[in-house]
Amino acid sequence: MKHEFKGIFAALTTPFVDDEISPEKFKQNIQRYNSFDLAGYVILGSSGEALYLTEQESVKIVQTAKESTTPGKKIIVGTAKESAKLTVEFTNRMANFEIDAALVRTPSYYKSQLTEQALKSFYLTVADKSRVPVLIYHIPRLTGISLDMELIVELSQHPNIAGMKDSSGNLAFMSELVPRFKSEFNLLLGAGSIILSGLSMGAQGGILALATVAPGKCCELYKLFLEGRIDEARRLQVELIPLNKAMIQIMGIPAIKYALDAVGYFGGHPRLPLLPLEEPEKRKINNILEKLDLLL
Amino acid sequence: MKHEFKGIFAALTTPFVDDEISPEKFKQNIQRYNSFDLAGYVILGSSGEALYLTEQESVKIVQTAKESTTPGKKIIVGTAKESAKLTVEFTNRMANFEIDAALVRTPSYYKSQLTEQALKSFYLTVADKSRVPVLIYHIPRLTGISLDMELIVELSQHPNIAGMKDSSGNLAFMSELVPRFKSEFNLLLGAGSIILSGLSMGAQGGILALATVAPGKCCELYKLFLEGRIDEARRLQVELIPLNKAMIQIMGIPAIKYALDAVGYFGGHPRLPLLPLEEPEKRKINNILEKLDLLL
Amino acid sequence: MKHEFKGIFAALTTPFVDDEISPEKFKQNIQRYNSFDLAGYVILGSSGEALYLTEQESVKIVQTAKESTTPGKKIIVGTAKESAKLTVEFTNRMANFEIDAALVRTPSYYKSQLTEQALKSFYLTVADKSRVPVLIYHIPRLTGISLDMELIVELSQHPNIAGMKDSSGNLAFMSELVPRFKSEFNLLLGAGSIILSGLSMGAQGGILALATVAPGKCCELYKLFLEGRIDEARRLQVELIPLNKAMIQIMGIPAIKYALDAVGYFGGHPRLPLLPLEEPEKRKINNILEKLDLLL
Amino acid sequence: MKHEFKGIFAALTTPFVDDEISPEKFKQNIQRYNSFDLAGYVILGSSGEALYLTEQESVKIVQTAKESTTPGKKIIVGTAKESAKLTVEFTNRMANFEIDAALVRTPSYYKSQLTEQALKSFYLTVADKSRVPVLIYHIPRLTGISLDMELIVELSQHPNIAGMKDSSGNLAFMSELVPRFKSEFNLLLGAGSIILSGLSMGAQGGILALATVAPGKCCELYKLFLEGRIDEARRLQVELIPLNKAMIQIMGIPAIKYALDAVGYFGGHPRLPLLPLEEPEKRKINNILEKLDLLL
Repeated sequence: MKHEFKGIFAALTTPFVDDEISPEKFKQNIQRYNSFDLAGYVILGSSGEALYLTEQESVKIVQTAKESTTPGKKIIVGTAKESAKLTVEFTNRMANFEIDAALVRTPSYYKSQLTEQALKSFYLTVADKSRVPVLIYHIPRLTGISLDMELIVELSQHPNIAGMKDSSGNLAFMSELVPRFKSEFNLLLGAGSIILSGLSMGAQGGILALATVAPGKCCELYKLFLEGRIDEARRLQVELIPLNKAMIQIMGIPAIKYALDAVGYFGGHPRLPLLPLEEPEKRKINNILEKLDLLL
Repeated sequence: MKHEFKGIFAALTTPFVDDEISPEKFKQNIQRYNSFDLAGYVILGSSGEALYLTEQESVKIVQTAKESTTPGKKIIVGTAKESAKLTVEFTNRMANFEIDAALVRTPSYYKSQLTEQALKSFYLTVADKSRVPVLIYHIPRLTGISLDMELIVELSQHPNIAGMKDSSGNLAFMSELVPRFKSEFNLLLGAGSIILSGLSMGAQGGILALATVAPGKCCELYKLFLEGRIDEARRLQVELIPLNKAMIQIMGIPAIKYALDAVGYFGGHPRLPLLPLEEPEKRKINNILEKLDLLL
Repeated sequence: MKHEFKGIFAALTTPFVDDEISPEKFKQNIQRYNSFDLAGYVILGSSGEALYLTEQESVKIVQTAKESTTPGKKIIVGTAKESAKLTVEFTNRMANFEIDAALVRTPSYYKSQLTEQALKSFYLTVADKSRVPVLIYHIPRLTGISLDMELIVELSQHPNIAGMKDSSGNLAFMSELVPRFKSEFNLLLGAGSIILSGLSMGAQGGILALATVAPGKCCELYKLFLEGRIDEARRLQVELIPLNKAMIQIMGIPAIKYALDAVGYFGGHPRLPLLPLEEPEKRKINNILEKLDLLL
Repeated sequence: MKHEFKGIFAALTTPFVDDEISPEKFKQNIQRYNSFDLAGYVILGSSGEALYLTEQESVKIVQTAKESTTPGKKIIVGTAKESAKLTVEFTNRMANFEIDAALVRTPSYYKSQLTEQALKSFYLTVADKSRVPVLIYHIPRLTGISLDMELIVELSQHPNIAGMKDSSGNLAFMSELVPRFKSEFNLLLGAGSIILSGLSMGAQGGILALATVAPGKCCELYKLFLEGRIDEARRLQVELIPLNKAMIQIMGIPAIKYALDAVGYFGGHPRLPLLPLEEPEKRKINNILEKLDLLL
C-alpha cells in the first residue's frame, strides 16, 4: 500500500536574513504552524525559492524542518533537478533525513525534447532509484510542460510514485484524472482558488502557499468540506480567492513573504532577482488581509 | 430588471447538405430538442460555424430557429463581427426576428491593439445601440483575448448587457467574478467539463455544445444540482467529461457533428477547412458514446 | 508561367470619414502613391481593416483602387474568409474588377482543427476555383496558424498559386524556403524591419504597410539592393526599423493612420474597437518621423 | 576598453560515457576543434547540458577545456543560476580558471515576477561582483523571458558587461539594437540559420552549436562574409540551414551528439530526460550530413 497524503499541506517559504538563510526564523514559523490541523509541510518547493539555494543551504532547511515539526505532520521535500541523475542524487541525500516524500517537478529546460517518452523515462528512473515515495509535480504555468493524462495514469501505477501535486489550475483535467487512479494514489491540488471544487471532484487535499498565510482558514475550509457544510465552505472559498490570486498568480513570493510579516510570521525578503514589494502592492495585500481579518 | 438566462442552453450546429445549409434538418433537430428541459438554444455560435456562413444563410438559420422553437425556450444568437459597426448592424438585423439576446464574442484580430479601453468602447457601443440584450462571450482559447475582471464588472452594470458566457475554463476566475455581479447579471458557463463546479460556485447555467449530443444527461445534471443531489451530479459530471473533452477540446465541430449522427440527430459534414472525422477518431467517439449508452 | 510579383507593394489603409469609407480620400492617396516606383498595391489586407468592412464597402474600395491606379502597377486584394466556400465566392466577385491576385490569409478560428491536411484542402480548393492567381498569406502573429514548410512547397506547385506573403518575421524560415521553390513562385516579405535581409536571401519583394508612410524610402532601399549598394541599403534599413516597429508591431493601424496624416496623406481614424492614438503615442510617432525627415 | 569577442565560437557539448562525464573525450574533441579558425569555445552552455551537471562535474569540464585549448582561442563559460547569489558564487569559482567571460542566461523560473526592474537588478549585481566580463544570454525560446531593448542598452553601458549572445532568432530586434551599442560592446548571434544576415546587420560573430558539427563550414562562411563574397556566403548559409534546423530547432542535443559521432567527433548520449535519437531521426540527420559532404 502506498502512503496516504491527505488534507492541507502548507508550502513553506525559506526565510532569509541579510540574504542568508535563517534556520531560526524557519523554526519559529514551523512551531507556530504546528498548532494548526495542517497535514504537513512542503519545503524546498516553488514557494521555498528552492532554485535559489545552494545544496548546503537546502540540507540545512530540511534538517531544520525535521527538527521543528511535530510528530504526525508529514514533510514533503522538493527535490527536482533538471536531469534524472541529479534528481536521484539529491532526493536520496534528502532521504537521509527521514522525509515522507519527494516532490519532483517536471523537467523543463529543453522543452521540445521533453516528449511523453522522455518524461516517462525520467519519472520511472527517479521512482526506481528514490529511497522515498515520489510525488509528481505538475505546474505548466512555470515549466511550460503539460503532462499527458495517459502518462500520468501509467506513472501512477509505479509502486514508488505515491501521488501528484497538480498546479495546472485545470479542474476538468483533474476531474477526469481522479476516477482513473487507484484509490491509494494521492492527488493533491496546488491551486488555492479552486481547492473546494477540487476536493468536491475527488482530490485528497492540497499543497498551498495560501496555507502559510492563512493556515487556520485553509484548515477550516477543509473541515467544512469534510462535514458536508458546502455553503459555508463556498463562502470561505470565495473570501480566500483574492488573497490567493494576489499572492500566487500576480505578485508571487515577494507578496507571500510580505503577507507573512503582516500576519505575524517571519516573511522577510526574497533573493534577487525577486524584488520586495513596492508600496502600492503592499497596500493591496494589506487591504485584502484586512478584509479577511488576518492583519495583526 | 434584466432578463434572466438560467439553466442549460444547447449550442446548436448548423446542418449542411452538399455544403448548403439545410433549414429542414435544422428544424428537425430543434423539434427533437424541444422535448427536453433545455432553457433554450444558441445559434450562430462557435458550434454553429457562424464564421463560415453568408449573411443570407445566417438570416435563414435564425428564421428557422424562431419558427421551430417551442414557447418558453429562449433563442440566443451569436452576432459578433470584428468591428463595432458591423456587429451593431448584424445584431439589429437579427433583432427583427424577436430573438432573446445577442451573444457577442470579443473581437480578436488586431490583438495588440485590443486593450482594455478598446474592448470597453467596443462593448459599450454595441450595448448602447443593440435592440436586444447583449451577452458577452469570453473564449480566450479561440480568440487569444482575455477580458480583465474589472472591465467585466464595469460592463455588467450596463443596462443592456444582461450576462456573459465564460468559456475560459478558469473556475477560479469565474468564482471570483460571480460575487461581484448584481444578482440580475447572468453568468453562463461554456465549459461542459466543469459545469457542476461552476453551478456550485454560482453560475446561472451553461451554454454547451455537449447539450446537443447529450441534452438529456445535461438537463439531468442540472436538475440533480438544483435538488442538492451532489453525489449523483458528480458521478454524471465525471461520466460526461470524456465526451466533452473529445468533442470540444480535441476534435471540435467535426466530432460534434459525427456524434450527432451517431445518436440520432442530423450532424452531417462541416464546411472546409474543417474536415470530417477519420475512422480512428470515429471509433473513439463511438466508444465514448457507447459507454454513456447514447449510441443509437 | 505564373505571373511575376516583384518589388515593393504598399499595403494600403482604408480611409474613413465619420466612420464611413471615403472613396475620394482613397483615390487621392493612390494618386500620390502612383508617382513612386511601387510595384503595386495591396488592398483589403490587414492594414486595410478588411474584417471591419461590409461586402458592399469592400467592393467599393476595390473599384476605386482599380480606377485610380496607373497602368503597370498591380492590384492585389485580400479576399480571405474563414471558410473555403465564402473565400471562393468573395474572391471571384473581386475577380470581376480585373485584379492581379487574391491574397488569402490562413483561416484561424478553430485552431486545433486546422491541421496540415485541413489547410491543404482549403488552399487547393480556393486555388482550383479562383479565377485569379492566389497568394498565400502567412501571418502567425495575428492568426496563431503557422504553415508547415513541406505544405508550402507542395502548394507552391499548384498552377494557380502564384506566391506567398510571409509575415512570420522568421528569416531562417524564409531563407530555407526560397531555394525550394521553382523560380516562378513569388515570395514577398511582409516584415519591413528585415526586408533588406529578406531580399538578400532571395525574396522577390515585399508587401509593406511601411511603404504607405515612407514609399520613397522603401523604393530607394529596394533600388539600392538591386544595384548592390549594400552599405547604403543597410543604413536605410536601420533607419526605417523604429518607424516600422512603432507602427506595425506596437501601435498598429491607428499609428499607421496617424503617421499618414502626419506625412501628408489622408489617414483618419480606424473603426472601433481600434482607437485613435493618445497624445504620448502621437509624440513618439512624430519624433520618429522627424528623424526620418518625413514630417510635413 | 572592453574585451573583444568576435568571430565564430563553437558551443560545445559535454561528453558522457556510461552517464559519467568524460574529460578525455572532451579533450579529444577540443584538440580537433583547435585546428579550425574558431574564435573560441562556449562550455557549460545550453549545448553543454549545463543544468544536468553537478558543480564538481562543471569544474572538471572547465579545467579540461582550459588545459586543452590553444592560446588565442577564448573560453566562455555558462555560469547562470536562477538567483544572483548563486550565479555570482559560481561565476567567481569558474573565474579561478582564467576564463575569458561568463555567459549569463536570463533567470526564468518565476516568470511573472521577472520584471524589467528585477532583471536589471539581477544583471547589475552579477556584473558588479563578477571577476570576469559578463555576456548576457538572451534565449526566449527556452526561458520564456524576453529582454526589453532599453534595458539591454542600459546594461550594455556597465563596464563589466562586455556583450550579449542573442538567440532570439529575431533579426529585426538585433538590427535595431546594434546601432545603439557603443562599438566596444559585442553582439554575438546564437542562431545559425540567420548568421549571415546577422553579420550583415552588424553582429560581431556567433556562438553556434552548428560550429561543433560543421566548424569548417561555419568558419568559411564567416571568412566569405569578411571578404565581401556575399553570393558564396549566401549559398553556404542556405546549405547549412537544414542541419541547423534539424539539430537545434527540432531534435536538440540528442541530434547534435548523434551528428558529432557521425562526422568523427565524440558525441555519445545525452543525460536523461533527454533520449538518444530514434532510427528515423538518425536517418534524417545522416541525409542532411551527406548532402553537406560531412559524413565520415
